[in-house]
Amino acid sequence: MSDAEPASGAAQTPGELPADPFADPVYREAIIDLLGGLAYGELTAFSRLAGDAELAPTLDGKAALARMAVTEFGHYERISARLRDLGIEPHAAMDPFVVPFDAFHDRTTPKTWLEGLIKAYVGDGIASDFYREISAYVDPSTRALVVSVLDDLGHSDFVVNAVVAAIEADPTVGGRLALWGRRLVGEALSQAQRVAAERDALTMLLVGGGLPGADLAELTRMLARLTDEHTKRMERLGLTP
Amino acid sequence: MSDAEPASGAAQTPGELPADPFADPVYREAIIDLLGGLAYGELTAFSRLAGDAELAPTLDGKAALARMAVTEFGHYERISARLRDLGIEPHAAMDPFVVPFDAFHDRTTPKTWLEGLIKAYVGDGIASDFYREISAYVDPSTRALVVSVLDDLGHSDFVVNAVVAAIEADPTVGGRLALWGRRLVGEALSQAQRVAAERDALTMLLVGGGLPGADLAELTRMLARLTDEHTKRMERLGLTP
Repeated sequence: MSDAEPASGAAQTPGELPADPFADPVYREAIIDLLGGLAYGELTAFSRLAGDAELAPTLDGKAALARMAVTEFGHYERISARLRDLGIEPHAAMDPFVVPFDAFHDRTTPKTWLEGLIKAYVGDGIASDFYREISAYVDPSTRALVVSVLDDLGHSDFVVNAVVAAIEADPTVGGRLALWGRRLVGEALSQAQRVAAERDALTMLLVGGGLPGADLAELTRMLARLTDEHTKRMERLGLTP
Repeated sequence: MSDAEPASGAAQTPGELPADPFADPVYREAIIDLLGGLAYGELTAFSRLAGDAELAPTLDGKAALARMAVTEFGHYERISARLRDLGIEPHAAMDPFVVPFDAFHDRTTPKTWLEGLIKAYVGDGIASDFYREISAYVDPSTRALVVSVLDDLGHSDFVVNAVVAAIEADPTVGGRLALWGRRLVGEALSQAQRVAAERDALTMLLVGGGLPGADLAELTRMLARLTDEHTKRMERLGLTP
């Protein structure tokens, strides 16, 4: 991808963005992909959390998951507004991500309340880490938006306490949930590869290609960091990563 | 029910509330029931709208229904806060309403996107009209809260346009959807009767019983008004009531 030239024609040093990066259609396309994926991720997170709330054993648990869903929808609204500012309808930007995100969710439909909680916690954690990493390569206003929608949903303690208590009550639960955590990561990686293979502009944003992106060594380190963070989250839940 | 005496022992003229109506445990119980039912209604409306959003034929439609769900959850949060102010946990206040509301929703699960839209519009309309009527008999601060969560969800035009367009495209749809509308009302009435039979304090709030409520003639007029409003909504949708 090193032969790709920014359409603006301006010479660029990797690691630096031009004054108006959106003048470059490849950059604009990459950001629209980034925000389109993020928007659809938030919209599906809303739907799935709202659906998983039905599995709650108590009304308080139901309200807690519904509250997380509502937070995700607020993020969706802000990203949609930005997409419209960039001159594209949110549905058009989200369209390429419908198949991979839906495939991920269809393959990881929680069967129990605890599986739902772990999916919310682990899935949200990986997505947040990934978007935070990629935000290093984008213009400041995009970065500010991305980082702002990655705010902690405030459900970490709620999920950790519920999972830890369930494992204490029945230690055999831990093995099954650890397997579930590994399956979530496996499915997420598999769909991420699919997106990377299909969305050139987005991938170029990540690995450079004329635009300021990560080189291969940095990409490897990034994947290592994402894995480390996932491991820490599983450990906080009392689960073998 | 005319032999029920307010526990405060104060003589009351029907139509007037004492300065501190909450000193009367029957009034307090009635308001907790009113708000508990309203809270659980909003929480289930959230879940069902979020679920029905999955039936949307477009991403814009999905986001529109999700937006309505989020509005309902905001109402739930405000009613919950008031219940806590009254010294009761929201889940305890909602508990008596779980069975009748869930029964209503289980019997009226939409099978299509249009059925989901009509349920949102008609169900929300009837509930709003009912709570607006009952709010005439409560203290000003409860009334202000109830009326504020009955704000138009802003989806009327969206639903009306979608249903009218669907009937224009295929007039046979109209007959099926009219039947669906009648079924929604029938199931709602059936569950309302169940609640009225089981929740004495709430029923007394509505029909008097020492507290300022509607007399039988007024109750009949109220039911006529609710029916009229439902008829108008069905007509706006282009459906035979």
